[in-house]
Formats: sequence, C-alpha cells, structure tokens
Amino acid sequence: MRTSVATVCLSGGLVEKLQAAAAAGFDGVEIMDADLQAAYESPEEIRALCARLGLTIEMYQPFRDVEGVDDATFADTLHRAEAKFDTMRRLGTDLVLVCSNAGTATIDDDQVAARQLGEFADLAAAHGIRIAFEALAWGRFVNDYRHAWRLVQAADRPNLGTCLDSFHILSRGHDPAGIEQIPGDRIFFLQLADAPALDMDLLSWSRHHRLFPGEGAFALTDFLGHVLRAGYSGPLSLEVFNDTFRQTDVVRTAAHARRSLTWLADRTAAANGWDADRLADATPPTGFDFVELAGSDLTPFDAMLTQLGFRFRGSHRTKPVRLWTFGDARIILDEQTRDEVPRVAGIGFEVPDAAAVESRARTLGAPEVYRRTHAGEHHLRSVAAPDGTAVYWNDTPAEASWITEFAGGEADEGAVGVVDHVNLGYRWQDFDEAVLFANSVLALTTASAAEVPGPVGLVRSHVMRTDDGAVRLPMNLAPATAPLPDRHIAVRCADVVAVARAARQRGLEFLRIPQNYYDDLAARFALDPGFLDELRELDLFYDRTEGGEFIHFYTPTVGGVFLEMVERRGDYDGYGAANAPIRLAAQRAARG
Amino acid sequence: MRTSVATVCLSGGLVEKLQAAAAAGFDGVEIMDADLQAAYESPEEIRALCARLGLTIEMYQPFRDVEGVDDATFADTLHRAEAKFDTMRRLGTDLVLVCSNAGTATIDDDQVAARQLGEFADLAAAHGIRIAFEALAWGRFVNDYRHAWRLVQAADRPNLGTCLDSFHILSRGHDPAGIEQIPGDRIFFLQLADAPALDMDLLSWSRHHRLFPGEGAFALTDFLGHVLRAGYSGPLSLEVFNDTFRQTDVVRTAAHARRSLTWLADRTAAANGWDADRLADATPPTGFDFVELAGSDLTPFDAMLTQLGFRFRGSHRTKPVRLWTFGDARIILDEQTRDEVPRVAGIGFEVPDAAAVESRARTLGAPEVYRRTHAGEHHLRSVAAPDGTAVYWNDTPAEASWITEFAGGEADEGAVGVVDHVNLGYRWQDFDEAVLFANSVLALTTASAAEVPGPVGLVRSHVMRTDDGAVRLPMNLAPATAPLPDRHIAVRCADVVAVARAARQRGLEFLRIPQNYYDDLAARFALDPGFLDELRELDLFYDRTEGGEFIHFYTPTVGGVFLEMVERRGDYDGYGAANAPIRLAAQRAARG
Repeated sequence: MRTSVATVCLSGGLVEKLQAAAAAGFDGVEIMDADLQAAYESPEEIRALCARLGLTIEMYQPFRDVEGVDDATFADTLHRAEAKFDTMRRLGTDLVLVCSNAGTATIDDDQVAARQLGEFADLAAAHGIRIAFEALAWGRFVNDYRHAWRLVQAADRPNLGTCLDSFHILSRGHDPAGIEQIPGDRIFFLQLADAPALDMDLLSWSRHHRLFPGEGAFALTDFLGHVLRAGYSGPLSLEVFNDTFRQTDVVRTAAHARRSLTWLADRTAAANGWDADRLADATPPTGFDFVELAGSDLTPFDAMLTQLGFRFRGSHRTKPVRLWTFGDARIILDEQTRDEVPRVAGIGFEVPDAAAVESRARTLGAPEVYRRTHAGEHHLRSVAAPDGTAVYWNDTPAEASWITEFAGGEADEGAVGVVDHVNLGYRWQDFDEAVLFANSVLALTTASAAEVPGPVGLVRSHVMRTDDGAVRLPMNLAPATAPLPDRHIAVRCADVVAVARAARQRGLEFLRIPQNYYDDLAARFALDPGFLDELRELDLFYDRTEGGEFIHFYTPTVGGVFLEMVERRGDYDGYGAANAPIRLAAQRAARG
Repeated sequence: MRTSVATVCLSGGLVEKLQAAAAAGFDGVEIMDADLQAAYESPEEIRALCARLGLTIEMYQPFRDVEGVDDATFADTLHRAEAKFDTMRRLGTDLVLVCSNAGTATIDDDQVAARQLGEFADLAAAHGIRIAFEALAWGRFVNDYRHAWRLVQAADRPNLGTCLDSFHILSRGHDPAGIEQIPGDRIFFLQLADAPALDMDLLSWSRHHRLFPGEGAFALTDFLGHVLRAGYSGPLSLEVFNDTFRQTDVVRTAAHARRSLTWLADRTAAANGWDADRLADATPPTGFDFVELAGSDLTPFDAMLTQLGFRFRGSHRTKPVRLWTFGDARIILDEQTRDEVPRVAGIGFEVPDAAAVESRARTLGAPEVYRRTHAGEHHLRSVAAPDGTAVYWNDTPAEASWITEFAGGEADEGAVGVVDHVNLGYRWQDFDEAVLFANSVLALTTASAAEVPGPVGLVRSHVMRTDDGAVRLPMNLAPATAPLPDRHIAVRCADVVAVARAARQRGLEFLRIPQNYYDDLAARFALDPGFLDELRELDLFYDRTEGGEFIHFYTPTVGGVFLEMVERRGDYDGYGAANAPIRLAAQRAARG
C-alpha cells in the first residue's frame, strides 16, 4: 500500500505540510494549487524538498471547468492549462486532477464533453502529462463516477483516466460496486475521505465536514474493496476538507491522518481475506482491568472511595501508588507526579492477547508509554492515546498479575462491582482523532451519538464500546469556549440504593439534584411514591426504557475527576442521557 | 410592543437567565421546562423572582406529542399533563406551548387529532390553563401552520389557540400571508427567530443555527406584518436555539437579543406605515468621516503614512492626537491610551442627521462613548459597538467641523483618496451581534459572504455596506482556535501603481507576495506582460471581473492593524477575495 495525503488536509504553509506528511510516514502528497501559490518557495524548491523528504508528488490538483463549454471558453481553458502544465513540469509531477465542470458548463452533451476532454488530454500529452478526470458530486452535468468513466472511454486517450473520490460517490448514495467494471489501470487516482451522516447540501458537507477514514459513517472498507478488486494499484490518498483539521497542529493531524489509512487498509484486507496490509487482529477488550488516577495528592479520593464502599487493597511495594476495589472495579491512585490537579491518567483493558494488541497499536503509530518497573514486577503493554492518556493491556487474570504487587490492605470478598464506563471529555479539536484511536487501536465501535444542552453550551456525546458492553467509553466534545471537560469513572453495582444510603451514612457529599427534577420524573413515569421519595432523599437519578431501568448518582468533582455509581436493571443499555443536562447544571452550580 | 425571550436562548442557570432578560429590558419570558428542572429554586421562588424583576412568565414550554396517538398513549399524556399543569400553577402562568407530535404519532387522522387536542384542552381548562398549539416543521403529520390552525378550529375550545413560530413556517417555505386568515385573538403566542440560508435538514438547522432577527436571511419584517395585521396583540417572543448563544455571556446576549426585537418592530412598522414602535429613520451613512487608531505609541504609523503619501495635517490643539489625510481619507492617531498594541479604536461616519441616528442608536440600546472635549471643540455624537469600537456620526462638512481643531501640519491639495472599506475581524462568538449592530444601528445591509481558506483555518467573510458602496465594512469571523484577527483600513486612490512606486522609493516594506502567485495570474488572465512585470515588481495583487479590475497592496502589520491601498477600475465591486488566502499566508509568514 502506497499512501498519500492532499496538502489541503493540513494546516500551515506548504513546507510545514510537506515536512509533517513525511514525518507521519506518508509516501507521497497531492499538491493543492492554492498551497503552491501561497508559498514563497519556487516549484523547483518544492520538488527538491519533496525529494529530500522522500515524498513523491503524486498529483497536482485541481484543474477545474474543462468540459461542456463553448469554444471561446474552451480556448481560454487550454491557455490556462499551458501555464499549469509548465508549473507541473517544474514540480516534476505528471498527473493532474481535472474535476467535472461545476462553474462554466453550458452544454449538456456527452459528445462535446468527450471531445473537449480528448483535446485537453492531447495538449497534456504534448507536455508528457496525464489527466485524472473526476465527477464532482455537484458537477453541473457530470456528477456520477460512471458518467465520468463513460466520458473517459469515449475520449479514448491513453493519458486520460479517471479519479475516484469516496466522498463524491458515497455522498450521493451511488453504488460503488460499479467501480469493478473499470479496468484498474484506467483508475489513475484514488481519493479517500470519510464523513458523518449529515443531511445537508453536498458542497457544504464536502467542504467543511469530511473526516479521515474510521471517523465517519461511510462504508469505506466496502468502497476500497471494490477499487482494489478493480485492479487499482496507485496510492491511497486522503483528501479531507475539514474546518477543524485546517486549524489543528499539522504534525499531530498528519500522524492522525496516516493512522486512518493503516486502519482502512487493514480492515479492507481483513474483509476480503487478503494477507497484504493486515495488522494483528483487532480483538476487542473483554473488560476494564483498572482505571488510574494521577495527582500529587489523591487523599480526597481515598476518602471518597471509602465512603462509596470500596476496599483498600494496599499500597504498591515500590511506588507511591494505591489500589482500591469494588468487586472487579479497580481504581489505582498514582501519586508519582507533581501535577496538583487529579486526572484520569490511564485505562487498563483486559484482552485475550496483549502482545497482538500492542503490535497492532505500534503499527498504527501509537507511541509506547514509559512506566518504571522493578525486577519481578509485572510488565503491562501500553501505548499513549493522542491526548496523552495511557492505555494498558493485560492478558493475565488480574489476581495473578499486577494486583499481587499491592500489599497492606484487606481482601474484597463478596462485593459485586465492575467499571461500567469511563467518560472521557475532549476539547472539540481533539475529538475526531480520539474517535479514530478508539476505533482503530482499541477496537471499539461507535454505538450512539447524542447532544446534551449544558449550561455553558451544547455537549456532543459519542459512545464507543464493545458489542457486548463490557467496555464502554462515552466520549464528550466540549463547547468551543469551555475548558477541558471533567472526566469520570462509572462503577456498576448490584444495589445502588444501598450503596448510596451507606455512602451518605459515611458522610459522602453527593451531587445535589434539584427537587424540580423529581417533579418532572413524577410526570414522566408512574413511579411508586415510596421509590420516588427514596430517589429524592438520596439524590439519585433515574431513567427508564421499554425493557430496563437505570439508577445512578455522582460524587463531587476533585480536580478534573468525579465518580458515578450506577445500577442497570433489565436490558437498559444507555447512560441516562436525559439526566445529563441536570447533572451538568448541578456540577456548574457546585463549582460556584 | 411587549417583548419576551425564551430562556433557551441564553446561557447559564435559570436565575441568571431571568436576571439578564430583565436587565436587557424584556417584559417577559418563556420558561423552558428543562431550565426549570435544572434549577434548585422552586417554581414559587421563580415566580416571586420574576415578579420582583418585573418579568411576566408569558408561557411554559414545550409539552410534546399530544395528538395522533392511540388511546393508551393518550391516557399517559393526560397523566403527564396533570403534573405539568401543577407546575404551571406554582409558577403562576396559564399558557402552555403544545407542539405537534414528532415522536409518538401513529394516526394520521384530523378527526382523531382534533378530538385529542380538544380533550387535552378540557383537562387544561379545569386547571385554568390555555393551550397554544404549534406545527413543528418536522411534525409527523402536522407540520404546516395552516394544518395546526384547522385542527384548532375543529377542536373548537375557547382555551385552545395556535402558536406561530417564524422558523417553522419560513424554513419550509410556507407562505405567511395565510396568517391573516387567522383571527388575531386565536393566535395565542408568537415566537420569532431568524436563520441563515442553509440547505440542511430542518431539525439540525432549527436546533443549532437559529439567529436573532436581523442576523439571518428570513423575511421577518414581512412575516411580522402578516401576524400584526391578523390582529395579534401578544408579546413578540424570541425562540432562538443557537450553539453560539448557548455559550456566550448571558448579559451581553440578552442585550443583543433585545436589540433585535426593537429593530424588527421598527422595520415592520416602517414597511406598513404604522407609527407605533417606529424609531428615527434608518438613514445609511454617506461616507467615512475618519478612522481612528489608538495606541500608546503610534509613531510607526506616522512613518508608514508618510511613505504611503498621506499628508500630516497637524496635531490636535488639546490632546495627543494627530491627523493624516490622503484626499478625503482621514486617519486619526490617538495616543490617549496606555494600550501598547495599536488597534482600530473608532470609525466616524458622515450622515445627513447625526441627532436622528444617535437617537435611533440609543433606543436600540447602544451605550454612549465618553470622549473628552474642551470648550469650543466639536462634539461628535457617538456610541460603542458591542465589541467596544467607538462609532461617531458627523453631519457637518468635515472641513468645517473637527478638522479645524488640528494645527501645525500642511494642506492636502490635489490628492484624490477616500476610505474604501474598513475590515473588521471578530472572534467567532462575537460575530452575530456585530452583524446585527451593523444592520440595526449603522443601517448597513448584508451584501455578500465568502469563505477564505487561511493557513490556520477558514475565515468567513461577510460584507456589510451601503447600497451605493460609499461605506463598506467587510466583517471576518476568525477560526475558533485563532487569536483575534487583525483589522485593516483600505484607502482607495486613483493610481495605486504610482502610489506603490512612490512608497517603495520612500522605503516602505510591502507585504511580499510569492512569485508563484504571479505565475497563476498569468494562467488565469491574459495580462500584458509589461503590466504583469509591474505587478510582480511592486508586490501588487490583482483581480478582475467581467466589467472591472482591482489592484491593491498591503503594508506590514503593526500591533493589530495594517493598511491597504486599493484602486478600483470599471465597475469592480469586490475586495479581491481570490487573493485573500495568499495575503493571509504572507502575513503569517511575516509574523515568523
């Protein structure tokens, strides 16, 4: 697999973009006309820089509005092209993207269009240049890849082929199976982009909301399968117009982009039974091993965990690290840091084969996390997520592995508990890469998305999970003006009312819930009055669906972290989304 | 005119929202169910707070999914309603919004819908409550205000009327003229929202992109005319769901919201020849009087203006303020500040009647700007724009007014120049209120919008101007991660090539333009080679349309300000939008 990225995907100047693309491991680039124009470096300098960086200039793009025009306009077009062909000669690239006419086309006649494309290709041939003709989704007369291919066939020039762009094809709902009817060597180029399922005009959707593969809703594995089965052997090139990536750090975005192609190639190969481009299998985790909080003084959590009924299992024998458990829910308090603000520093997952998962993650470009281990201690395989959170994988039964390194506490017999979910908040500009990481490295899938109106803006929530629900990561995208949202650990227990009552007796300050919330509950659900009183007394949230119920409560926030205790009854599978606005408002009020 | 605002328009907790609404001068509020639920204050406390603040609770909203359901669901609905009616009793409000069923409707039968609405109204009547039934644009079976009104007629209950929402009607392109067929006293409520022209699904458009009147593309003056001619006499109430206003400062947003209603009522009265609610006439300015820069040391601008060929007209006789002119383009350098970073501090406009414009601005809630004046000095009428920029109005010919207060410089005879436009950059969250201010207070109209891909994100540009082009304010919305964008003053002259050549001889450092830009110009336009060389030599930008040409160049940026010199040939009416990405990239490179 050869990989490429269009310079328009990245922020900054052209030289920065090229350096970032090379650092991320791309083999080549598509150079956007506008990026070259804005550069002080000459085409010769850009060519030499790419050569030094080991980047092939795969394509120059775009050249617009060629076919379907009157003769005078076509003569102007050929004049425009001469200058661009000269620029391409200086850049040392021989392939130019021509996209179907969306601006000047007035003649809806395939014969005229094919003749003009043919003449255009002949002029290009005189300069040793090849043309990749692409149907824009909003082309005036040509907006279907099958139509573009018919025109290429009709023009019948050896240096004229087609360019396929997943966005232009999938956004219109066109069946990509027809791609297999195109000979692979006539597909001159392939551009890949994912996108969220949005119901809006194609141009705005395309220009602002494209995503890297694995972040959106397009069936790209299926799409790429068709292209490769057609015999296409050129690079997989990303062309992602996205308002966010235009302003995020170019090096980080390039790495993120590169990961998306590795993931896509692997998934496509897996779906087709091909060996090439396969990574180790993407085996989803079977559960949470632990969640680690870090901070220079985590004493408030020791107190809070005691109140919640967690057991202190002891301190680590070599490090200022403590372990608390509630059944199989394990929370590690790590004070090996000078950071005063507590945060969720790491998440451990139980997996069938940690070495395989780690190898896969490495190939996907995830860096290792340094963790000091002493002789005889269990080594956990780990990588850092893009936001710095450590991820650990454990394939040894917990009781036989790192837990044995903790001593001085007491046994935790009889308690039934497990980490239900870890809620991770992100700055809006870090959200898409986090989704891709969860998808590609953690092997989680997108389950649902929701919007929660909070007191300081709308929070977008996106749940990544395993099919069986053993691991759930609700991911929240914060409003642009808001600080980094708090994160929280939700622990599932068998009787949350009992846990809440005991915690209150032990003096835990719950997040207080407005009485008006319970008046609304009474209106929404026909609850037993005694039960409603119990919810009200204990500041418990409640939700119900057809087949199940959800009862939960929240601790105060310490630093950037709080805890939630939940109980799921029946087949309730959500997170109490209806309660989230109340919770956000209550937390804001608690901050004062 | 009675005014109201839905609490959902504003950020924060319910008490903050109510306080901000009162401070902005609203007469009443619509209380959103979700805002009450998230409040610790009881309904009785909210009622008492509103009474103290002088706010009427005009409506409680929304109650969903009443009509078109099976009997069991309807029984549940009546149960839900009992509890809400009790909450309304405690709040002391008697009007509830019922929006057409978008969730549970299964029966597409007007007889069933009318019967259920009637029974619902009867239950409400027993609690002394009135129902305002509204067609949601995405209602399952009822999504047209005319259909909602037919159902209200069929149900025929005295406490059942209709609610009209401009978004739900105009977003679907329904003709609002039919509103005049509804008796005014059966229109129980009116909700107003503007919106940009977007081609996307109605629900997303409505939930995220509504705007206050005067900021979007809806013909709201026409709409409100129909409603008032129908005889509606209730409040004009804003219901604006907008992702930005959910996170902006509640006090500022409330003031901004209130201004939009004053503006809308005035424009509607003007269009219909009514006296009530009229402000002083909205007379557009006839030209720029001056632009004022402020900073503790503006010497770099004295040097730059000299190089550009401006004349030093002297210092103010009482203040550390200097005047420079290029024909009728006047730039004031004001050093009465400790701010080290120079900025565009004020803009003066020439108007036919400054007192009328000032009176209008005051009624629209714009605060006065303090300006120290000594005896015998000209007093300029002024207000502060929402971002703090001072706006001045002058109806005395410049040469007879404040210019006479400057002395010690030289005359500026023969130079032909004028301020062409002032380009104002805004943080994204301050943009909509700036558009409304330009529209309502400055009497400018929206001419065009464009998107410019910059090196650190997409910049949205929106031009506000007078019809004759004498005053033009291109307004730029910065990417969310970007700092406040620089602002600039563009001065139009008769021969920009000569100005550029002279400036270069005087040592001005121009913004350098990449050679690749000129290669592209050659490809796009068949320019005379000598002219192209001249553009290249002098770092001039060029643009061309059917009937005109535009030549322009930029100075370096000092603090947050730079200057542009432009020449318009023929009927060129734009701003060189195609050159903006190059300029943004060059300015970023110049910052290093």
